Amino acid sequence: MKSAILIALGDELLSGIRQERNCGWLANRLTLSGWKVLRIDILPDGPGVLQGLLPSYIGRADLIIISGGLGPTHDDCTRASLSRYLKAPLIIDTEAYAKILSRYPPDMRRNLERCADTQGSLPEGTRPVHNPKGSALGVAFIKEGTRVYAFPGVPTEFRAMAEQELSADLVESNGCMRSVVIAGWAESLLKDRISALTEDDLLQITILPSAGTVEIVVRGEPSKVNEATLQIREIFSEDCLPEGCPSVAEDILRLAVAKGLTISCAESCTGGLLGAALTDVPGSSDSFLGSAVCYSNEAKRNILHVPVEIITEFGAVSRESALYMARGALKQFSSSVAISTTGIAGPGGGSAEKPVGTVWFGLAGACEESTAMNVFPGDRAHVRAWSRNRALYLLRKAVLRVNAQ
Amino acid sequence: MKSAILIALGDELLSGIRQERNCGWLANRLTLSGWKVLRIDILPDGPGVLQGLLPSYIGRADLIIISGGLGPTHDDCTRASLSRYLKAPLIIDTEAYAKILSRYPPDMRRNLERCADTQGSLPEGTRPVHNPKGSALGVAFIKEGTRVYAFPGVPTEFRAMAEQELSADLVESNGCMRSVVIAGWAESLLKDRISALTEDDLLQITILPSAGTVEIVVRGEPSKVNEATLQIREIFSEDCLPEGCPSVAEDILRLAVAKGLTISCAESCTGGLLGAALTDVPGSSDSFLGSAVCYSNEAKRNILHVPVEIITEFGAVSRESALYMARGALKQFSSSVAISTTGIAGPGGGSAEKPVGTVWFGLAGACEESTAMNVFPGDRAHVRAWSRNRALYLLRKAVLRVNAQ
Repeated sequence: MKSAILIALGDELLSGIRQERNCGWLANRLTLSGWKVLRIDILPDGPGVLQGLLPSYIGRADLIIISGGLGPTHDDCTRASLSRYLKAPLIIDTEAYAKILSRYPPDMRRNLERCADTQGSLPEGTRPVHNPKGSALGVAFIKEGTRVYAFPGVPTEFRAMAEQELSADLVESNGCMRSVVIAGWAESLLKDRISALTEDDLLQITILPSAGTVEIVVRGEPSKVNEATLQIREIFSEDCLPEGCPSVAEDILRLAVAKGLTISCAESCTGGLLGAALTDVPGSSDSFLGSAVCYSNEAKRNILHVPVEIITEFGAVSRESALYMARGALKQFSSSVAISTTGIAGPGGGSAEKPVGTVWFGLAGACEESTAMNVFPGDRAHVRAWSRNRALYLLRKAVLRVNAQ
Repeated sequence: MKSAILIALGDELLSGIRQERNCGWLANRLTLSGWKVLRIDILPDGPGVLQGLLPSYIGRADLIIISGGLGPTHDDCTRASLSRYLKAPLIIDTEAYAKILSRYPPDMRRNLERCADTQGSLPEGTRPVHNPKGSALGVAFIKEGTRVYAFPGVPTEFRAMAEQELSADLVESNGCMRSVVIAGWAESLLKDRISALTEDDLLQITILPSAGTVEIVVRGEPSKVNEATLQIREIFSEDCLPEGCPSVAEDILRLAVAKGLTISCAESCTGGLLGAALTDVPGSSDSFLGSAVCYSNEAKRNILHVPVEIITEFGAVSRESALYMARGALKQFSSSVAISTTGIAGPGGGSAEKPVGTVWFGLAGACEESTAMNVFPGDRAHVRAWSRNRALYLLRKAVLRVNAQ
């Protein structure tokens, strides 16, 4: 079994200002690929730290990954530490740094050029690692049979560079692990439906709840795993997303393109989260037309043409307002389907009749009109996220139904 | 400055199945109380692990905290490891264990009594630590001036026992750590402006970039810290957010309420992210009216009344379209300020003249009209996040200027 030691550097990790996340993530990826992680060390910034450590680690593991300390500021000491440990002077890798800078517009590039002596340097004899997401070069070398990599601590950069450099190591043995993403189910309810599978000793089942979806990861013998995923797809039928489709929003847009539909939204309590989720998907402009975020009652009247008497009689958070909002978006954007959200995200604004967490949804167009209501638990951020996820779930169901007519 | 070393034991932490949380939490509490955390080690379960480590740590720090390995199962080795390290046999502390069991109903108690030789035992000469939340006894001892504690890894138990045993240590001394949040500055530019402070040996400065802001955390002697934060506020003047205000969006809404302004947005490439950021703040409805997410050109025309010839002549991503979009939002929502975003988030849609990452911003209302353009690096998610952050920065500047007129 190949072994790895992971090291995270940063005063902010030791003062608890930031939670260390890179090593936990990489440890999981390595474990799934058959590696053994020997230890994770979280250490302060500072010039002496790595030198004290590396002599006792090099040669003991196949892989050492260092996260952090590669930026341009005074507390970034990884390059200097590696230089002293390797007894190799720091040199600027003009070519590798220029490749990074070419991604930046001229004004940012000028500024970054001044950081070449920090972000663009590495100990002589080591290999530069390209950074596709940021401006600091990574460093790689092999010593006493141990491969050592230093990547920046910014999570997006760390992950991209680890995926890129360790692609041959992070090979999750295909077939013995598969997953199914399910929309709209609570983890606790879902568990009961698959208890026959979780009690099977020959299968290892991990349930990973995410925003609006639950991913069931199945590991074991390939034939057992395939059988189990088929069973899961049968149990949850159309609530399963297609293989390889990670999000409800992406599936909605895929379905809309396939069925020639266009989509619009009218948002109150989600405040733009719904539009943001849909436009997060590349190519969303093929079927997403827009979203009217109407927080004030005047905006609901003027932009979505919700009749003033509807708001006065039933309130802005009501079945009636939700329906008129969806109708308004349908008309204003001339889309084939429209969905609306209106609710009380809190912390204020609740009442006995309509407590914080009450959210109404409206659907219009594509041969149907409907409304739904939920009372979501949690704080403002939770209620808003639940509302976005529920709206996406309802919208996907509506889009799925269109062909059935 | 008193120093601490934190050690977390558990295979599940090294395989990434569970994220380590106890040490990060305690590190934060200790730092706020004026302690220096020297390192956090995450190590596997197993009999040899602690023995290998403790000889080099004891005497080096004032405090060592061990999390995990105290339960009743085969992989819980902390008691046995401490026993071997201290050369003291394990004995059952009947009295201390009985105190724990008295909290349990009879049927559970009978089961737990059978675990006395593991959960109720500790090396002779060490002190039992009561567990108010679970059934495993903790262990405490002092050696070579170092206080050592072992607490169970279950977060609720770990936290309760740490609070109880370290109550005299975890006294947050106000003033020895303060931070300033700065909007709109790149980390690389910012660090040059505060080099006098980062070179001051009596101050510990941590620079934490976040979405659209950089936080400068200053630690040290209270009077030095206060002086340094004043200097930072002078250097970055109005780009500093007020103390206790964590985000640009929150500051915009605070300023808008104070100045009696209302806000609306017109979003294309941000697709709702801008509205979502503003409505993330509780009470945002006091000044945020809404956002027209107009992804299609038809929506830009029909909802924001951008003249068709403006889009045909200059394109949807242009200074002119951005300005008309902001004017449209101002009028449609009847707000006092409006901001717009229109750009090419990618991966498709770029050209030589307007590459992916090109984003125009428009501002209208509140005595001014203006536009700005940036070319942002990175992928779709990056360009969208940069665009949202830049729009918030521009909006805050506009709102700040209103009183100056």
